[in-house]
Amino acid sequence: MAKGAPAIETIAASDAPNGKFIQFPADRPLCTDGGGCVAPLTIAYQTYGELDAQRSNAILLCHALTGDQHAANLHPLTGKAGWWDVMVGPGKPFDTDRYFVICSNVVGGCLGTTGPSSINPATGQPYGLDFPVVTIRDMVRAQAMLIDHLCIDTLFCVAGGSMGGMQVLQWAASYPERVFAAMPIATAAKHSSQNIAFHEVGRQAVMADPDWRSGRYLEQGVRPEKGLAVARMAAHITYLSDQALQRKFGRKLQDRSAPTFSFDADFQIENYLRHQGMAFVDRFDANSYLFVTRACDYFDLAADYGGSLAQAFKGTKTRFCVVAFDSDWLYPTSDSRAIVHALNAGGASVSFVEIESDKGHDAFLLHEPYFIATTRGFLEAAAAARGLARPGSEARA
Amino acid sequence: MAKGAPAIETIAASDAPNGKFIQFPADRPLCTDGGGCVAPLTIAYQTYGELDAQRSNAILLCHALTGDQHAANLHPLTGKAGWWDVMVGPGKPFDTDRYFVICSNVVGGCLGTTGPSSINPATGQPYGLDFPVVTIRDMVRAQAMLIDHLCIDTLFCVAGGSMGGMQVLQWAASYPERVFAAMPIATAAKHSSQNIAFHEVGRQAVMADPDWRSGRYLEQGVRPEKGLAVARMAAHITYLSDQALQRKFGRKLQDRSAPTFSFDADFQIENYLRHQGMAFVDRFDANSYLFVTRACDYFDLAADYGGSLAQAFKGTKTRFCVVAFDSDWLYPTSDSRAIVHALNAGGASVSFVEIESDKGHDAFLLHEPYFIATTRGFLEAAAAARGLARPGSEARA
Repeated sequence: MAKGAPAIETIAASDAPNGKFIQFPADRPLCTDGGGCVAPLTIAYQTYGELDAQRSNAILLCHALTGDQHAANLHPLTGKAGWWDVMVGPGKPFDTDRYFVICSNVVGGCLGTTGPSSINPATGQPYGLDFPVVTIRDMVRAQAMLIDHLCIDTLFCVAGGSMGGMQVLQWAASYPERVFAAMPIATAAKHSSQNIAFHEVGRQAVMADPDWRSGRYLEQGVRPEKGLAVARMAAHITYLSDQALQRKFGRKLQDRSAPTFSFDADFQIENYLRHQGMAFVDRFDANSYLFVTRACDYFDLAADYGGSLAQAFKGTKTRFCVVAFDSDWLYPTSDSRAIVHALNAGGASVSFVEIESDKGHDAFLLHEPYFIATTRGFLEAAAAARGLARPGSEARA
Repeated sequence: MAKGAPAIETIAASDAPNGKFIQFPADRPLCTDGGGCVAPLTIAYQTYGELDAQRSNAILLCHALTGDQHAANLHPLTGKAGWWDVMVGPGKPFDTDRYFVICSNVVGGCLGTTGPSSINPATGQPYGLDFPVVTIRDMVRAQAMLIDHLCIDTLFCVAGGSMGGMQVLQWAASYPERVFAAMPIATAAKHSSQNIAFHEVGRQAVMADPDWRSGRYLEQGVRPEKGLAVARMAAHITYLSDQALQRKFGRKLQDRSAPTFSFDADFQIENYLRHQGMAFVDRFDANSYLFVTRACDYFDLAADYGGSLAQAFKGTKTRFCVVAFDSDWLYPTSDSRAIVHALNAGGASVSFVEIESDKGHDAFLLHEPYFIATTRGFLEAAAAARGLARPGSEARA
């Protein structure tokens, strides 16, 4: 662990556009699974709450594919609440009166952490596709550098959904002694063929846009907005369940009483998807989309352990709470069960909760009372086991 | 019914590139649900087998979204077997030794029937988006004109899967007295929100391609191949089940032993999808893709009957066999059950078969022994009820 790191400050939500950041010197590069090297590496992050004197109450939240470090503050680009505002804050499950919550933008992202839109020091131009293809493990390696920098030995908890859940699993496998509790949510230990297929469609949509310019669009003053919007539209369908779409939109028409017999957005679902596509391009970089989808595709945790997922968790002391949503068809419950079986085989302490919800994959981002209660209960039990002080108790200091 | 139509000839498989066709004079237009008009209307079709003397053994096959009239002959563009070669031919369920099988390209299509790539007589240029947006009912109206032309009063059977199944339902509702038996397969009586969503993604992918040129690409000597390929890739995922993808491709790598840490098609599923996309653009017109997807989106049979699907089939004498495949998530079994419930409520004769298969929506196009046996059994029972002669019996000729 790096010693002599600066003291931790609690920051206001919007002190800086992308919150805090740490730039590691060029002689402390991130070496990637693919043999690449990112140097210098910048990690942008947010923190909420206060680190206790024992540095024992830190929770790392890992964001999903197009999430970012703005888990619980107003987003600097969209002005909207953070992606896990429902879960993170005073009195919420990730209780910032009790825990010190950290969330960093993944390497390869586009909200301040080094990624394909960052300047490549070798050329003075944005990396583009010269940025090394990163893996989930590379994302976790970068996070570990941040956690070292924050002088935190053991994280009280690592939690996240979807791609964030993959990072949770990777944390538990790579650094078992540094993770007291882990919550992989709506995720899988490997990306399925169908998952890869949907990601490939998104990448091809981006690359088909002539404004993508082989990834060199930033220098050329254009952006592959249409391609990225199509990618987002396709992906967005996979985040919702058939039932949720039926309930929210059905075949309802958009601001009209009869179909127009045209290719206008007659149906509300069309209007909604177009809006999702357009809003996305305002906040996300197209090349980053290629890199983060690729990282998921390459994720197959068992492959790093001789094909045995149980081996990845063998002898772990981490307490797990695995959460799945029954209408999630992108990372179906069977994916979570496979994780649970491996954890059991590896002798781990594990709870498994399958939550009934018709909201599909995105349920983990929404107000799901039972999910909220599950998270609160798991964290409180883990906090008791770790001997963390209750908010307001004398032990707080 | 049009009298004086030419005698029916049995044609060899590849007499003409797109088989037979009939061009209706301009004073016999197809008037569309949207208030448009197609004139002159050409319908390209294929026939297999011989019409009996009573003109009682005709089966109309309705093709799916990107299918065509080449159900059981070598495809003139791809050189591959017809899309239902497994089901249509001597001794096969749609037994051409016994039945006279007709399959026509839908209006709005691109294999010979009038569609957006046809010449608009008003301008001398391809219609493009000036072609009227057609509905499933319009497709069926055009087919009825063909059936009139062939001097067939009552079809022994109308059968088809997916969009073809919608046409079957529309036939049974619009012309109950002209349909002795009906097989709607892997279909729905209305397009769901998720169905519309996937179609909208495909259309936006086409329209995002600058070579689409607002639909005027043919005159300008270009084609939106990249956009259409992306549309096909996204759609293709929906035709297969998660399990089928896992079984066929899983996470297997394509001609390599390790990932390349790049955006190459490392995985077999990526290679497969790219191939599907590229092959599709060689045989299908991008504007036709917009029109046929739109026709499906607008399909809501109950809406034409005061919101009651049962009303659409009230008092029908048609015998139905509704078929669903349990791994079909595009048109799930629940969609077929809704049809069956409505048929029961309408007092119809109906069999319902849910076939266990892990092949997803496309199962109806594949060699599925139980589906083949079901089809054969249903047709034989219907043929006996209609008093059709058995092949080789004296009553033939």
